[in-house]
Amino acid sequence: MIAILDATCPLRQKAEVVRFVEQRGLRVQVSELETRTLVGILGGGDEALAAELRALPGVREVRTVAPPYPLVSREHHPSATVVRVGDVEIGGDEVVVMAGPCAVEDEAQILRIARAVAASGARLLRGGAFKPRSSPYSFQGLGQEGLELLAAARAETGLAVVTEVVAPEDVELVARYADVLQVGARNMQNFRLLSAVGAQPRAVLLKRGLMATIEELLMAAEYVSSAGNPRVILCERGIRTFESATRNTLDVSAVPVLKEKTHLPVIVDPSHAAGRRELVPALARAAVAAGADGLIVEAHHAPETAASDGRQSLTLEAFDALMRDLARLAAALDRRMPRAAGITSGS
Amino acid sequence: MIAILDATCPLRQKAEVVRFVEQRGLRVQVSELETRTLVGILGGGDEALAAELRALPGVREVRTVAPPYPLVSREHHPSATVVRVGDVEIGGDEVVVMAGPCAVEDEAQILRIARAVAASGARLLRGGAFKPRSSPYSFQGLGQEGLELLAAARAETGLAVVTEVVAPEDVELVARYADVLQVGARNMQNFRLLSAVGAQPRAVLLKRGLMATIEELLMAAEYVSSAGNPRVILCERGIRTFESATRNTLDVSAVPVLKEKTHLPVIVDPSHAAGRRELVPALARAAVAAGADGLIVEAHHAPETAASDGRQSLTLEAFDALMRDLARLAAALDRRMPRAAGITSGS
Amino acid sequence: MIAILDATCPLRQKAEVVRFVEQRGLRVQVSELETRTLVGILGGGDEALAAELRALPGVREVRTVAPPYPLVSREHHPSATVVRVGDVEIGGDEVVVMAGPCAVEDEAQILRIARAVAASGARLLRGGAFKPRSSPYSFQGLGQEGLELLAAARAETGLAVVTEVVAPEDVELVARYADVLQVGARNMQNFRLLSAVGAQPRAVLLKRGLMATIEELLMAAEYVSSAGNPRVILCERGIRTFESATRNTLDVSAVPVLKEKTHLPVIVDPSHAAGRRELVPALARAAVAAGADGLIVEAHHAPETAASDGRQSLTLEAFDALMRDLARLAAALDRRMPRAAGITSGS
Amino acid sequence: MIAILDATCPLRQKAEVVRFVEQRGLRVQVSELETRTLVGILGGGDEALAAELRALPGVREVRTVAPPYPLVSREHHPSATVVRVGDVEIGGDEVVVMAGPCAVEDEAQILRIARAVAASGARLLRGGAFKPRSSPYSFQGLGQEGLELLAAARAETGLAVVTEVVAPEDVELVARYADVLQVGARNMQNFRLLSAVGAQPRAVLLKRGLMATIEELLMAAEYVSSAGNPRVILCERGIRTFESATRNTLDVSAVPVLKEKTHLPVIVDPSHAAGRRELVPALARAAVAAGADGLIVEAHHAPETAASDGRQSLTLEAFDALMRDLARLAAALDRRMPRAAGITSGS
Repeated sequence: MIAILDATCPLRQKAEVVRFVEQRGLRVQVSELETRTLVGILGGGDEALAAELRALPGVREVRTVAPPYPLVSREHHPSATVVRVGDVEIGGDEVVVMAGPCAVEDEAQILRIARAVAASGARLLRGGAFKPRSSPYSFQGLGQEGLELLAAARAETGLAVVTEVVAPEDVELVARYADVLQVGARNMQNFRLLSAVGAQPRAVLLKRGLMATIEELLMAAEYVSSAGNPRVILCERGIRTFESATRNTLDVSAVPVLKEKTHLPVIVDPSHAAGRRELVPALARAAVAAGADGLIVEAHHAPETAASDGRQSLTLEAFDALMRDLARLAAALDRRMPRAAGITSGS
Repeated sequence: MIAILDATCPLRQKAEVVRFVEQRGLRVQVSELETRTLVGILGGGDEALAAELRALPGVREVRTVAPPYPLVSREHHPSATVVRVGDVEIGGDEVVVMAGPCAVEDEAQILRIARAVAASGARLLRGGAFKPRSSPYSFQGLGQEGLELLAAARAETGLAVVTEVVAPEDVELVARYADVLQVGARNMQNFRLLSAVGAQPRAVLLKRGLMATIEELLMAAEYVSSAGNPRVILCERGIRTFESATRNTLDVSAVPVLKEKTHLPVIVDPSHAAGRRELVPALARAAVAAGADGLIVEAHHAPETAASDGRQSLTLEAFDALMRDLARLAAALDRRMPRAAGITSGS
Repeated sequence: MIAILDATCPLRQKAEVVRFVEQRGLRVQVSELETRTLVGILGGGDEALAAELRALPGVREVRTVAPPYPLVSREHHPSATVVRVGDVEIGGDEVVVMAGPCAVEDEAQILRIARAVAASGARLLRGGAFKPRSSPYSFQGLGQEGLELLAAARAETGLAVVTEVVAPEDVELVARYADVLQVGARNMQNFRLLSAVGAQPRAVLLKRGLMATIEELLMAAEYVSSAGNPRVILCERGIRTFESATRNTLDVSAVPVLKEKTHLPVIVDPSHAAGRRELVPALARAAVAAGADGLIVEAHHAPETAASDGRQSLTLEAFDALMRDLARLAAALDRRMPRAAGITSGS
Repeated sequence: MIAILDATCPLRQKAEVVRFVEQRGLRVQVSELETRTLVGILGGGDEALAAELRALPGVREVRTVAPPYPLVSREHHPSATVVRVGDVEIGGDEVVVMAGPCAVEDEAQILRIARAVAASGARLLRGGAFKPRSSPYSFQGLGQEGLELLAAARAETGLAVVTEVVAPEDVELVARYADVLQVGARNMQNFRLLSAVGAQPRAVLLKRGLMATIEELLMAAEYVSSAGNPRVILCERGIRTFESATRNTLDVSAVPVLKEKTHLPVIVDPSHAAGRRELVPALARAAVAAGADGLIVEAHHAPETAASDGRQSLTLEAFDALMRDLARLAAALDRRMPRAAGITSGS
């Protein structure tokens, strides 16, 4: 249930609404939006409570059912949200590219890749330390050691770090090292994890589940936001369909649809959608042309020996070439990409 | 990586293999099957280790890639596994029915429903205390209070209790009250949760994710099994397709396919597949005819006022009628169902 | 547009409505249902015409949009339609089984199979003479020669014949030999073909397209019915999903959903859904348990050398065993199956 | 079965191979490719024939199974095919846009739209005269009158005409008026229709079925090509998935996948994929960025009153704005678009 208050209503009235709900044993989430203040009543509330709330001063409206994602909806927040990570702005004019290996393997690997993608114009370094794997017998990541290596690569290159967190009990650890916490596709409806990343201050990269509708992605974002963290970046990464020529089917339409429905930034992962590096540049270009605010791309200096997902990782040379193509494309779309030094034969 | 040892190989040799692996800093999972002993090397192992292992006495074979789910596969375990819960055998001749409300609401509700479904022949009571909900503003279940009410219903009716656990940190609490721990469809690839329910002794009901392949379901079961708990019951509950006439599309073929591939029991949830109570009896009959070892069905004395999923809950009268039909069907398939007293007007 | 007249309205008034529409250059389809007479105005009609029609005597209602399939809907035709083919009733108490090879190959083959499936209790013989194949380089069927062989098999065994027609220009030829004209899944929305089979008197077996919703199947049936042929049998044969363990995903829920929405008989093709003969018996049982009025099953005396689809064809022995199982199942569901002589070693 | 001959093999030897096959009662399709001559043996041929063929002079290879689409595959035809329609080249440097209404409604409508889209830079005029409709009660198109109106619009604007043909018996009529014959998504596996458009000289626009794999689309193109017509343009128009926020899910990855597998031109229909005009520009841009050779777009001067699909038709102003955006995008991708006059208020 959501109570909607005028943004101009006096603080005393807002406090009274909160006190009123909490006295009834319910928790609230207060969100100050541009034109309204929303008081979300978490996990319940009946029609009788709604009627009482409607009678309080300052309460403009109480909704017991819709909208399902009031905080992330564009309805009360028409302007786009820009998520700032260091000096990078995600959701603004710049097309922000995050790049790196699927998994952190060792210090030499992550440093080499970080230097190269930075030189090509990437702004964040991706790399998995905790890997969710379909089989218990597969490589599960380096864990804390991987996080330390990512932090070392950040120290050297200046790239911010985005890495996945797979369980609520790891959130504090991962947040100590990472700038952006990624919630992976398989965990998009792990509601405890969503609440945990919502209760800490780092930005959150929320990937769409491969079986999730756009509505469900927005409701997952609402979990994060309603737990107190509005810094959510959405990521389309391909959905599961009958077509087997690609690993997943990139739902490029999700970009304009999300842009209509939410004020949050939207990026695309062309690597997991494609499943084969040959297709990644075309999908990356399509995503930017469709209006994506950024990309997250797998790149590796030796994809054929990568610990996981090598088949879909770009070589560093191919990544550099892609970045040059994207810069031209971005300009034709009135968006910016950073001027890159480019990689050289030594990198 | 999996090392396969002859079942008849001396214990000393088996211990040597385990010691050898652990000295290299890797964890193992030993499983004594009918014809073989499997030593799973968790989370890694390379070709060099495989070569060394192959040279050890008693080691018949080392597989670095396939099969992806050695413990739950029928390959080394041809006879069907029967999971015993109290005096109920799941995976044997009996078609076992689990029934109850979507969510535990209060004492009167759960007792009334438990008495009725027991009288109709159900053997386990289902009911959610922790509810994973797409929206943070929906009813999330009664939590521990719900577990206590389920235990009270068991004490009165003798029905064993199956209920969902949604996070690793809740496993101990839920296992204190429940006989079977359910992992829901949205958590089928929550690998930490799978490991957690694998590290405790209660039986596990593992639901197929609504966009998970049968292979992925089996690999999820392997997570539970490789963590030490072989008492896994698989559940088909409908997959997501383009068809919108039903909430999900019941993949009834999954029953014979799973029966080919694994020795674990397989049950079906017709309620979540159908999404409408009118369709539940036909799907329940189809599931039993396809060879399911049991069903998990939502039933409620007043579906129209249920806290969740009322649209797909059978009335207690409709559940009773279904059980009578299923008993006839089971007999025609040479399977058993318990003789039921039937519900009376007072129940 | 549909004009609905009282069934009791005088013939003169009905004729006047038809004349009125035809004078405006539009074609009509008159259908006498149990409680109403429907006058379908084909291919158009605007709001002005609707207003004029509503003013005519005997016209109870004019609908410009809904329902999309008035003739096949249960709304005005609550009792089930029984399609009679010779002495076989499809849609009545009997579970009717149609069986035979995917393609007619030669005289010895079709006769041998026909004799065997008849002895096992099949009531219709299936066999393709015109085969729609994905590749132009595959075997396309024997054409007219195949039809003649099917007729010869009917003469010897008494089985009625069902065979596919793939183009409007073949309808007359196929109808000369077959008792039931099959429209295949790939042609479910070949509207010219639907109109052509609707303009001749043979019963029509309409298979659901592998990408078609249940609503679209019903609208395809409406094409046949509105062209003048109410003798339509619907067939669920699996839909395309992400799951690749089966050739298609049998949507067993389509059986009860169709039974709710239409008065037409509904049968199931477990062979094309499964794609592997091992799964066919389980799917056949599931279909009958879900309420199907019949089955269409591929059977062959030497599946491994069949000209097409051998992988999913039952051996004649397996078909016989299935029929015995189905007879027990049918009895438990209060439906009939014919007493079969059974196949002997000589058949 | 396919026999592959050296392109340099003497004509006499080629004729001998053809004669040899035809004497055995089989039909052949001879295709002269860049590096090879392919002799396709239609509808059959066994291993014995293959052995005999392999012994003939000039025959380099005989394949009984793979590849399923030799004529349209890039394997023997590495350079891209350019389909010329008048002075327009589809599959070359230019991004070719086809635009117009869903259905031809009357002379004023089609002329007004044709003039406007021509002024904005479209090169072909689309418009349906024969409409395949899910319901028999919907508007089915103007038929021959619609074709005449399209021809009139061509005479005035110089735009080539692309329009749908829905049945083999209409091919001759439609080919008399149209420059490109469209085979719609529902007819992608109407093999008789594919053969019919393959047996006439007009270029063919082949749309992917909404549940067809990329492989199946290529085999459908092979039907057209093997019937004698190599001028095939492929069209991705969205596939059916679980996501309902768009009418279909545009499979933008199909563009680079098809470009790998075939030498044929590939265009995209963003209108049918989106289902809502608001999404069309983003999808159109994504398609061009992914490498599409062109687009087919619905545009209408008054979408809200269009006879069909108005919801997804761009206004003429929105189409003009899109064309300007696409021209900038094309330049950034080193492709061309024609300089457009632009529409003015009078158009």
